[in-house]
Amino acid sequence: MKDKLSVVKIGGNVIEDEKALDIFLTAFAKLGGLKILVHGGGKLATQLATRLGIESKLIDGRRITDKDTVDIITMVYGGLVNKKIVAQLQAKNTNAIGLSGADGNSIHAHKRPVKDIDYGFVGDVDGINSELLTSLLSINLTPIFCAISHDGNGQLLNTNADTIASEIAIGMAQHFETTLYYCFEKKGVLLDIADDNSVVKHINTIKYNELLSDGIIADGMLPKLHNCFHALQNNVEKVCLGDVSMLDKKTELFTTLKL
Amino acid sequence: MKDKLSVVKIGGNVIEDEKALDIFLTAFAKLGGLKILVHGGGKLATQLATRLGIESKLIDGRRITDKDTVDIITMVYGGLVNKKIVAQLQAKNTNAIGLSGADGNSIHAHKRPVKDIDYGFVGDVDGINSELLTSLLSINLTPIFCAISHDGNGQLLNTNADTIASEIAIGMAQHFETTLYYCFEKKGVLLDIADDNSVVKHINTIKYNELLSDGIIADGMLPKLHNCFHALQNNVEKVCLGDVSMLDKKTELFTTLKL
Repeated sequence: MKDKLSVVKIGGNVIEDEKALDIFLTAFAKLGGLKILVHGGGKLATQLATRLGIESKLIDGRRITDKDTVDIITMVYGGLVNKKIVAQLQAKNTNAIGLSGADGNSIHAHKRPVKDIDYGFVGDVDGINSELLTSLLSINLTPIFCAISHDGNGQLLNTNADTIASEIAIGMAQHFETTLYYCFEKKGVLLDIADDNSVVKHINTIKYNELLSDGIIADGMLPKLHNCFHALQNNVEKVCLGDVSMLDKKTELFTTLKL
Repeated sequence: MKDKLSVVKIGGNVIEDEKALDIFLTAFAKLGGLKILVHGGGKLATQLATRLGIESKLIDGRRITDKDTVDIITMVYGGLVNKKIVAQLQAKNTNAIGLSGADGNSIHAHKRPVKDIDYGFVGDVDGINSELLTSLLSINLTPIFCAISHDGNGQLLNTNADTIASEIAIGMAQHFETTLYYCFEKKGVLLDIADDNSVVKHINTIKYNELLSDGIIADGMLPKLHNCFHALQNNVEKVCLGDVSMLDKKTELFTTLKL
C-alpha cells in the first residue's frame, strides 16, 4: 500500500494577509502525514513592480513576463514570500525547505512557444523530479514551492501556481496515494455565487459535466476545475477545494472531486 | 578515511558582474567531489533599497538591518541572486539546491544582543545542521547558501557570509575532510597591497602572528583571516584564499592556510 501525501496549494489572498497566512500555516503544520505546499504570490509582485516604476504589461488580461518582471517574481515569490513561509513553519515545528523549480531540478519546463502572443518568460511544465521530492520527504523535510520553474538552460520561468500544484500531485501519484488541496477564499464550488454556503460537496465526472452545461462553473473556476480533473485523470486520488477550515477538519463544508 | 568536501565562499564583487559570475560558476561546476557554495549579495541589496527609497542606516560603518532591510535582503540574496545561481549551475550539470538558514533548519542563529548598538535583525550563528547537509550531499545535491540565518521563532536574520562559510566548514568537518575556499578579487594575502603578485603562498600560525605584528594583515583582511584560523582551530583541514583561478587549478598563486 502506498503512503499518503497531501499537496496543498494556497492562493494569493492568504499570502497577502499576515493574519490569514498565520492561521493557514498553523493548520498546514498540524496536517498529518507527508505534505508539500505550493504558494502563489498574490499582488505583492505587482506592488513591488509599481514601487520600482516597472509597468505591468497585460495582453487580453494576461500578464507578460519580461526580464524585469521575472526578476521581481524571483525576488518576491522565490525570496520574500517563500523564505518567510519556511521560517514561520520552522517555528511551528514543520521542517520546511523552500524550493523553486530550479532547485534540485525539481520542475522542468519550457518557455511557452510564441503563437499570437509572446508571454515572455512563462513556463509550461514538462515534468517534476519525483525522485528528488521522495528523497526529501523521506528525510522528514516538507517542500515549499514557489511558482517558478526553469528550462535547464539557466532561465527561470514564471509558472501558474495551480498548474505547478497539479503537476506535482500527478508526478507524485506514482509513489504516493495523493490528495490535492486547493485552498482559497471560498468554501468550495458554489451553486449560487452569492451564497457562500451553497457548496457542492461532491463532484464526479458526470456532475462536472452537468455543472459545466448549466453554467455553474464559469470564469476563474473553469481553469481551476480543468486542472482538478486533469489531476484525477492522471492517478491523483482526490482533489479538495475549500477554505482553510478544510485543512483543520473543522468543517465538512468543502468540495471533494473524484472521477 | 573521511570523504573530501569543499566549502566555497564567493564575494559580492563577482555576484554583481554577470560575466565574472559565469566564469566563477563554470569553475565551481567543474570542481570535483562534494561541495557547498556560500554567496554574499554585494551592493545589489543597497541598490534595490535606494530604488525603493529605503535609507541604508550605518553606525560606525556597519549596516543596521531594520525590518525593511531584512525584507530586501531576503528578496535579493534569498531570491534573485540565489535562484539565478542555482538555475545557472543546473545548466552547467551541477544539481544545485538553494538554501537560506531557515530551509531545513540548516543554520540556527540568535539576534545579536544589543550592547552599545542595536544592529537589528542580524544573526550570530549558533550552529549548522550537518546531518541535513550530509543527507543532501548523499543524494548528489550541491547546497547553495545565501547569507541568511533564522532564529527558530520565525525571524530571518541577516548574517555575515564569511562567517556562514566558516561555520558550515566547521560543522561539516566532523563528517568530512573539509577545505574552505574564500574566493575574492585578490590573488591571496598580499605582502604589498600595491603588487597583485606579492602573494604569501603559505601561512601557518607562526607566520600569521608575524604578518599580524608586521601590520601586513590589516583592515578587511583582519576579520577574514580571523575567520580562517577559527575554522582551522575547529578541525577544518585547510583554508585557501584567492581569485577564481584558484578553483580552476590554473594557478598556484593563492594563499593556503594551515595550523
